[in-house]
Amino acid sequence: MSELLENTTDSTGAAEALVARAAALDAADPLAKRRELFALDDGVVYLDGNSLGALPRHVPARMAHVIAHEWGELRIRSWGESGWWTAPERIGDRIAPLLGAAPGQVVVGDSTSVNVFKALVGAVRLADDDSRDEIVVDATTFPTDGYIAESAARMTGRRLVPVAPGDVPAAVGPRTAAALVNHVDYRTGRLHDLPGITAAVRDAGALAVWDLCHSAGALPVDLDANGVDLAVGCTYKYLNGGPGAPAYLYVAERHQGRFDSPLPGWNSHADPFAMSPGYAAADGARRGRVGTPDILSMLALESALDVWDGVPVGEVRAKSLALTDFFLECVRAYVPEGRLTSLTPAAHAERGSQVALSCPEAPAVMARLIERGVVGDLRRPDVLRFGFTPLYVGYADAERAARVLAEVCAEVSEGR
Amino acid sequence: MSELLENTTDSTGAAEALVARAAALDAADPLAKRRELFALDDGVVYLDGNSLGALPRHVPARMAHVIAHEWGELRIRSWGESGWWTAPERIGDRIAPLLGAAPGQVVVGDSTSVNVFKALVGAVRLADDDSRDEIVVDATTFPTDGYIAESAARMTGRRLVPVAPGDVPAAVGPRTAAALVNHVDYRTGRLHDLPGITAAVRDAGALAVWDLCHSAGALPVDLDANGVDLAVGCTYKYLNGGPGAPAYLYVAERHQGRFDSPLPGWNSHADPFAMSPGYAAADGARRGRVGTPDILSMLALESALDVWDGVPVGEVRAKSLALTDFFLECVRAYVPEGRLTSLTPAAHAERGSQVALSCPEAPAVMARLIERGVVGDLRRPDVLRFGFTPLYVGYADAERAARVLAEVCAEVSEGR
Repeated sequence: MSELLENTTDSTGAAEALVARAAALDAADPLAKRRELFALDDGVVYLDGNSLGALPRHVPARMAHVIAHEWGELRIRSWGESGWWTAPERIGDRIAPLLGAAPGQVVVGDSTSVNVFKALVGAVRLADDDSRDEIVVDATTFPTDGYIAESAARMTGRRLVPVAPGDVPAAVGPRTAAALVNHVDYRTGRLHDLPGITAAVRDAGALAVWDLCHSAGALPVDLDANGVDLAVGCTYKYLNGGPGAPAYLYVAERHQGRFDSPLPGWNSHADPFAMSPGYAAADGARRGRVGTPDILSMLALESALDVWDGVPVGEVRAKSLALTDFFLECVRAYVPEGRLTSLTPAAHAERGSQVALSCPEAPAVMARLIERGVVGDLRRPDVLRFGFTPLYVGYADAERAARVLAEVCAEVSEGR
Repeated sequence: MSELLENTTDSTGAAEALVARAAALDAADPLAKRRELFALDDGVVYLDGNSLGALPRHVPARMAHVIAHEWGELRIRSWGESGWWTAPERIGDRIAPLLGAAPGQVVVGDSTSVNVFKALVGAVRLADDDSRDEIVVDATTFPTDGYIAESAARMTGRRLVPVAPGDVPAAVGPRTAAALVNHVDYRTGRLHDLPGITAAVRDAGALAVWDLCHSAGALPVDLDANGVDLAVGCTYKYLNGGPGAPAYLYVAERHQGRFDSPLPGWNSHADPFAMSPGYAAADGARRGRVGTPDILSMLALESALDVWDGVPVGEVRAKSLALTDFFLECVRAYVPEGRLTSLTPAAHAERGSQVALSCPEAPAVMARLIERGVVGDLRRPDVLRFGFTPLYVGYADAERAARVLAEVCAEVSEGR
C-alpha cells in the first residue's frame, strides 16, 4: 500500500526543469482560468481544499443580497418568492451531474453523518428481509460513518461487520442487508472500486451505500451508470459550499417509492402545510428531507456551485491525476530518499485527488509548511495530507509545495 | 378553548382613544428602543416573527466578515482561530439564559426535527427500563414532533400514546418512558403548564422532553428550576437567528453522563481528531453534536443573539402579554361582533406570544392583510396567526394591525 519515495535527482538543473515544466503545464491547462473565480492569494498554496474548499469570489455579494434583501426585507415571503422552500431539491439537481445522477434523485440538507443514518437505515428497510441481519461497513472509513453505522445497526437489530473495502465483495452474502463504503479513503487518498464493489454487493442481494465526501467534485462518480443504491456526501470540500455546508442524499429512483426514512420530519411530508397529525411521505427526492433547511448555508452552496458551470468532470479528473503525478515527481526530485513515505497509490485507478505522505516528524513539518504558505493538513500521528483541487490549484503550486516541503523536511531533520 | 369576540364599541372616539393609548404605551415601553436594532420598514407591521424573526441590522456586516475573511482568507485555519469548532457549545451557552439553563447544557446544531429524535431516543435510553414501553406525545403538537416521535417509538420498540397536553399528567404511569410536549401550541398560541406537566411526568418515573420552538425568547422557560429532563427548540423565530438557523438541544446536567445519542457522529466523540474507529462519547453538551456544523447559519445566529444583551426575559413576557391584550382589545373595538373567533386563551397563564383568530374567509383575509403591510400568516383552513415579538413590535403596530384587519374583514364579508 505504501512505497518509500526515492529521490531521483538532486541537481538544480532538475529544479529549473520542473519549474519550466510547471509553467508549460499551467499554460496548456484548460481549467487554469477557473482559479480567477476564487478568492485566493498568490502568496498561499492552498492544498486543503479536500477539507474546506476555497471561497468563490462571487459568493459574498450573493450572500449579502440573501441576508439583506431576502431575509431582511422580504422576510417570511422568501420561503416562496425567493425559492427557499424548494432549495433542497433544486440544489440537489445542481449537484446531480457531478455525481452522474439524473435529476430528481439528490436532495441537500443536514450533515453527512445524519445522511449516513438515513441512508443506512433506509437501505436495511429496503432490503426488507430479517434474515439479512448484517451491515457491512468499510473499516477504514472516515470514523463518523462507522459510528453512525453502529447506531443504525443497533437500531435496526443488525450486526455490524467491518471489513477493508477490498474485502467487501468477499464479505457480502445472503446475510447482508447493506454495505457502506467510502469512495476515497480520507487518510491515504486511495480510490476504491465503486463499480466492482457495487456490483458485488448487488449480486449478493444487498444494497450498496456510498460516501462520496472525498470524491465528488474531484473525479467521475457515475452513480446511475454503476447502479448505486444510495449515496451521501458533503459539499464543503471539492464543491466549495462553505464551512459545514449541508450534505446531500442520493436515493436511486427505483428505490424512492419504498424509501422509509428514520427521520420523517415535516419537510418530507406529502403535504407539509396541511400540518396533519398523520405522516404521509412525499414522492421523490424530497422524501429525504427532515426539518427546516438551513437557508443561509444552503444558498451559499448554491451560489458556489456556479464555478462548475461548463466544467466536464472528465477534465477535472485528468488534471487531478496529472497534478498529483507532477507533485509526486517534484517530491521525489527535491526530498532526499527515504525521508517520506507515500500512502497514496501510484496507480491512477486507485488514486483520489489527494497525496498523503507520512514521516515521523509530520506534526512539526506541517506546522512549518503552513507558516510558509503551503497549507495542507495533518492526520495524527504522522500523515501529511495535500489535497489537489483542479479548479484552483495549478502545476506551479505543486512544484512550489514540493520545494518548500523539501526545505522544511531538511530543517526539521537537522533539528533547526 | 375559544371565545367569540365581542365588539365592545364602534365609535370613532374609541379609535382615537386607542391610538392615543398605543402612543402612551409605546412611550413608556422599556423595550421600545430595541426595535432600532432590527432592519424593519415602518410601512410594514411584521407579525410573523413567530415564524421567521426579523433581521438584526448588524448581522449583514458580521456575515460579510465571516464569509470574506474567516472563510475566504483564513479558510481552514478558522476552525481554530475563528472559533468555528467550539461554536455549537458557545452559542448554546448564549441561549441558555433565555431558557433558564445554567451553562454547559445547551448545544446548537441540526434541525429541530433531528433534535427531537436525539432527545426522545435519548430519553427512552435514559429511562433504561423495558417495562416502560410507551412514549406519550402531545397530540396537538407541531406535526414534525409527532412524526419523529413515531419513528423514535418504532426504533426503540415503544408504543406511541398521543394525548392532549392537559391529559399528559393522567396518561403517564409505570409504562411511560418519556413524554414530549410542545410548550406553546403553534396553532392556537396556548401556553401549556410546563412546571405541572414536568412534575407529573417525573413523578411517574418518566422523562419530560419539551419543545420550546414557540416559547423560548417570548417568555420565561426556567428549564433548570422546573427539573426538565431534555428540551429542543428552534432559533429562527423569537431568537431571530435567520431562516432555518440551527436548533438546540438541552440535556440536563444530571443526565449528560448517561445520554446515549442515536446520532453519535464524530463531532460528539471525546477526541474527534484522533479519528479512532471506536466511538467514545464526549462529556457535557458536546455529546449532543453530530456532524460538521453549518457554520454560516450558526454564526448568523450567534451574531443575531446580540439583540438580547441586557434584556430580562421577564420584561419580554410582560410586554408580550400587554401587547396581545391590547391587540385583542383593539380587535374587539374594530371588528364587528361574531366575525372572528379567538383561539388564544384569555388567561395570561395560558397564553404564549401569539394571537390566533379564526374565520371562514381566513385565506382571503390574510392575503389582503399582507398586501396592506400587516404580515401575519395563515394556518389552513381558517386560522389567522399574529405573532407578537416584544423586541420589535409595539403598541401602535398592534392598533394598526387590528384596524386594517377590521377593514379587510369588512371588505371580504361584503364580497368587495
